[in-house]
Amino acid sequence: MGEPGRLLVVGSGLIGSSVGLAATAAGYDVWIDDRDPERLAVAVSVGAGRARDADLAGVDLALAAVPPAAVAGVVDDLCAAGIATTITHVASVQLEPQVEVDALRPRLTTFVGSHPIAGRERSGAHHATADLFEQRPWVICPTVHSAPGSVTAVTDLAVSCGAAVTVMPAAEHDLLLAQLSHTPQLVASALAGSLLGLDRDQVALAGSGLRDTSRLADGDAELWAEIIAANRAAVASALRGVTGPLVALAELLETEGPEATASAVGALVASGRQGRDLLAGKHGQAAVRWAKIAVIVPDQPGELARLLVDAAGAEVNVEDIRVDHSPGQPLGIVELDVSPAEANRLRRGLEERGWTATASTPLPD
Amino acid sequence: MGEPGRLLVVGSGLIGSSVGLAATAAGYDVWIDDRDPERLAVAVSVGAGRARDADLAGVDLALAAVPPAAVAGVVDDLCAAGIATTITHVASVQLEPQVEVDALRPRLTTFVGSHPIAGRERSGAHHATADLFEQRPWVICPTVHSAPGSVTAVTDLAVSCGAAVTVMPAAEHDLLLAQLSHTPQLVASALAGSLLGLDRDQVALAGSGLRDTSRLADGDAELWAEIIAANRAAVASALRGVTGPLVALAELLETEGPEATASAVGALVASGRQGRDLLAGKHGQAAVRWAKIAVIVPDQPGELARLLVDAAGAEVNVEDIRVDHSPGQPLGIVELDVSPAEANRLRRGLEERGWTATASTPLPD
Repeated sequence: MGEPGRLLVVGSGLIGSSVGLAATAAGYDVWIDDRDPERLAVAVSVGAGRARDADLAGVDLALAAVPPAAVAGVVDDLCAAGIATTITHVASVQLEPQVEVDALRPRLTTFVGSHPIAGRERSGAHHATADLFEQRPWVICPTVHSAPGSVTAVTDLAVSCGAAVTVMPAAEHDLLLAQLSHTPQLVASALAGSLLGLDRDQVALAGSGLRDTSRLADGDAELWAEIIAANRAAVASALRGVTGPLVALAELLETEGPEATASAVGALVASGRQGRDLLAGKHGQAAVRWAKIAVIVPDQPGELARLLVDAAGAEVNVEDIRVDHSPGQPLGIVELDVSPAEANRLRRGLEERGWTATASTPLPD
Repeated sequence: MGEPGRLLVVGSGLIGSSVGLAATAAGYDVWIDDRDPERLAVAVSVGAGRARDADLAGVDLALAAVPPAAVAGVVDDLCAAGIATTITHVASVQLEPQVEVDALRPRLTTFVGSHPIAGRERSGAHHATADLFEQRPWVICPTVHSAPGSVTAVTDLAVSCGAAVTVMPAAEHDLLLAQLSHTPQLVASALAGSLLGLDRDQVALAGSGLRDTSRLADGDAELWAEIIAANRAAVASALRGVTGPLVALAELLETEGPEATASAVGALVASGRQGRDLLAGKHGQAAVRWAKIAVIVPDQPGELARLLVDAAGAEVNVEDIRVDHSPGQPLGIVELDVSPAEANRLRRGLEERGWTATASTPLPD
């Protein structure tokens, strides 16, 4: 890895400011810029870099942290200023910005796209942190013209920010993100939107399943509009991959009897189980079906902690945890995922410590 | 509430056996039956009731714990035997069994439908517990012919099992469950199924969002086939409510430019946020948008407990918690939901105790 160099960040939102903080911590010399002087002042005040001065020149790397549709304009300006050896960006969409850059600056060797896949339910420099990219994927998308040294410079920055780097073409990135991120967002929004018209008492009968499935619907409308508008073809295709089987099933439900319905539903649910198996277990290993232990927990400060201390006392590693507040009750059900081999030990351990715990394992295939 | 009486449970799966256990604990005199003698023996061995003997007569309540399509046949048999003052069932679908019962036994006053909304990712008497229904909703669906005394008998049983009772017509129950449970299941399955064709390394780029949205896809294919085949019209309608906006959006993405796309996506995400607001917060209160604190946690036994102990030390009540294992890394990101007023105190408290915590709040509306 090369020595940390001189970095200019253009755009002082959450991502740009967090890159500034992380790069500063890694030893980079960082300047930051924003067309909005107030936002820039916040970014400088949280330590995301020095404000860019008019005569700044000769930086090793310039990074455009702006919405997808604004990337090409910023890259063009940076080229015109001749300020940087390498230019990258961090937008959630790669192909459209790359095509636009290529139209403005054909065969540009200094340009390399990139996308740190980090949290999105937040915005603004005041939420920026140096560890936003820690342990997160950071996809790097060189163009066919990108100079090897520029690809290295962007990779070094990502690694310095603590991210796990993956390299792939822009088109592949966009198709993947359409499937893994943009389409789940739209599906969650449509599912949650379909509840409008019900009243609160009716919706209160929903269990944790609907809550999980619709959680992404809390996302920001403007942010998602920008992202998906810049990735239209890939999202349309990924969306069709989900709506196709559902529309076919709705037609069948409207026209066929129970046997044909049961067979179609069985096939759809079985294919979903195969898809879930693909979703990596932790550490990129093959997915594991965890055993589930449901525990009744009083809704008071410290009770969740006491439960997990007691689980640790049983020397069981809790892999995942879900909290399900029941409607109208002062108690919640907490579901703990553990290795199937440890499930009985956990249940007994919790019961010995006074908890009401229900063991359950997923159904066999 | 009346005195606990004599109860016959027909069907010794998870739900039937758990009702047997809970009713026994509440003082009912319980018999249990199953057409499979081995399954029956397991249910009896876990304490779900005595095996039904051939001359059993005069029970107060008989409960059919069988799949939706089998309910009417069991009810008809119970009527023919003249064994019970009240007959109920616990299927996830209400209207079709009710119509079928009415065809076999017109104007039956002893029949009342019911549906305890309890866990589903498990099966078999060996997983049964007396507390399966504790704090969970239990919907009761009288027919127009149900005797008031029979409605009371079923309500008493549900309350004795610790459940929160709601009464509504069968058709309303089925439409609601189609929206709140059956359609989210199908959507999650279709989303997870759409991943087939990707390889594990590609899917490893997915964040916790896709994992949440597709979690239900781990469900059992046969069970869901039975449920949805018995609720075809309601599920078709609820499914159209989700696919309609998504198909319209896919068409727009294929034919229109970025402005029209952004506007349509913005509207869909905004309607989803409204829908999420309807999903009750805890205790049936209005939904709250929690502040989110992301913390880096080593993947070792006890670390999650230590985190929550430290959160409790900051006198903050953790409302919800999500674990996100990063691909290829020995650390996970744990996201804690807390009241917005407590978010900064939690973050500072965790940092004082040596954790790396990132504060984040949902974007403003």
